[in-house]
Amino acid sequence: MSDTRLGWKDVRDRIHRMILTGRYGPGDKLPRDADIAEELNCARSTVQRAMQDLSDSGLVERRRKGGTRVRPDPVTRATFDISITRHEVEQTGAAYGYQLIGATQEVPPRGVQAVFGQKIAQPMLRVQALHLADARPYILEDRWICLQTSPEILSLDLTGISANEWLVLNKPYDRLDMRFYAENADPARAGLLGTAPGEALLVIERTTWIGDAPITTVKASTAPGYRLRSQS
Amino acid sequence: MSDTRLGWKDVRDRIHRMILTGRYGPGDKLPRDADIAEELNCARSTVQRAMQDLSDSGLVERRRKGGTRVRPDPVTRATFDISITRHEVEQTGAAYGYQLIGATQEVPPRGVQAVFGQKIAQPMLRVQALHLADARPYILEDRWICLQTSPEILSLDLTGISANEWLVLNKPYDRLDMRFYAENADPARAGLLGTAPGEALLVIERTTWIGDAPITTVKASTAPGYRLRSQS
Repeated sequence: MSDTRLGWKDVRDRIHRMILTGRYGPGDKLPRDADIAEELNCARSTVQRAMQDLSDSGLVERRRKGGTRVRPDPVTRATFDISITRHEVEQTGAAYGYQLIGATQEVPPRGVQAVFGQKIAQPMLRVQALHLADARPYILEDRWICLQTSPEILSLDLTGISANEWLVLNKPYDRLDMRFYAENADPARAGLLGTAPGEALLVIERTTWIGDAPITTVKASTAPGYRLRSQS
Repeated sequence: MSDTRLGWKDVRDRIHRMILTGRYGPGDKLPRDADIAEELNCARSTVQRAMQDLSDSGLVERRRKGGTRVRPDPVTRATFDISITRHEVEQTGAAYGYQLIGATQEVPPRGVQAVFGQKIAQPMLRVQALHLADARPYILEDRWICLQTSPEILSLDLTGISANEWLVLNKPYDRLDMRFYAENADPARAGLLGTAPGEALLVIERTTWIGDAPITTVKASTAPGYRLRSQS
């Protein structure tokens, strides 16, 4: 018996063509995987693989029970994996360094409360620290840590382990908000990052929650030339 | 019969604790879902849901046949959905505008060839265009389009439809590379974006391929204040 069945890429391209030709338009529901498999004479798992790919690339939406729909607004979807900063530096082959700039307990200002989306009346631990690669500034982090969800942080020696590393390893979150933007370096950040005021910096802001409770928010100002690349 | 079975978040937290306490260390293989389900007296689908969550947040790696491993290097994983620029502008409630700055056929310079990872000897279509929100500059794009994979682009009226929109809708890719970085605006870009030279700009670079063949690469310089936010 010769195997003339379609591969998943062929199936993906056929489904994609059904969308391009208007047979299924934005927001339309696609047939069930099993029905497409029958129509195209292939295994249902082949259709699933094809649908996963179309979903990963932002063309269709898969719902647990609601089947598959053509996205009303197609997107280009990218995934970014942000490592523990020490690992990230070591993976470039550079020697990692770390300097604690300061750790103080303060009630967070309104801007930080807004990032968490709630009023915060109790002090948080604010940690400012510099990560270095081969003794050169790499990322400057300005972090707020909730003492209700991470009380252990007060007994850690933050000159020895970075709050970044400890939190990633010890505090699972169930909500993450991440923002990327560019800012001109102000004189203070420029000094700490060893660059000129006005230099364009990529800023990565990350905020995590467990349930409704804040864990931490960090504003990471990267050194000039920093590039973040998607996984493929 | 009272239901004392664990929910998926409980199961996730138990598995996470097994990792935190060192029962399973970085790189270790975790037991099969079915075995964990038996140990915790819950449904296998509950373990699957928990594992999916731990995988989405970068703590474990799921492999199609190889089971689940603790990631040797835990990461914070974020997904970004980049819409067609017209949709993105319209979703903010602003009126979308589009200006074609120029379209020329040129052999791409070495920097662009490097982005595609291959030598390119034939001309590509270079399209420069400005996207506007409420008549104010929003994104300036500098794009190269491969004429072997998108010959149709030459017969389109690019003053009427943006290459961005046409390509997203018509050219499926199977590889995407995305990079984010910050740059100070040079005088030309500052002029087109209506800002001052030196202003920090978030740049989003996207490159797509189908098989080994390039489709397009675009350097999108966003106007000052632009923020990109992850999906949660």
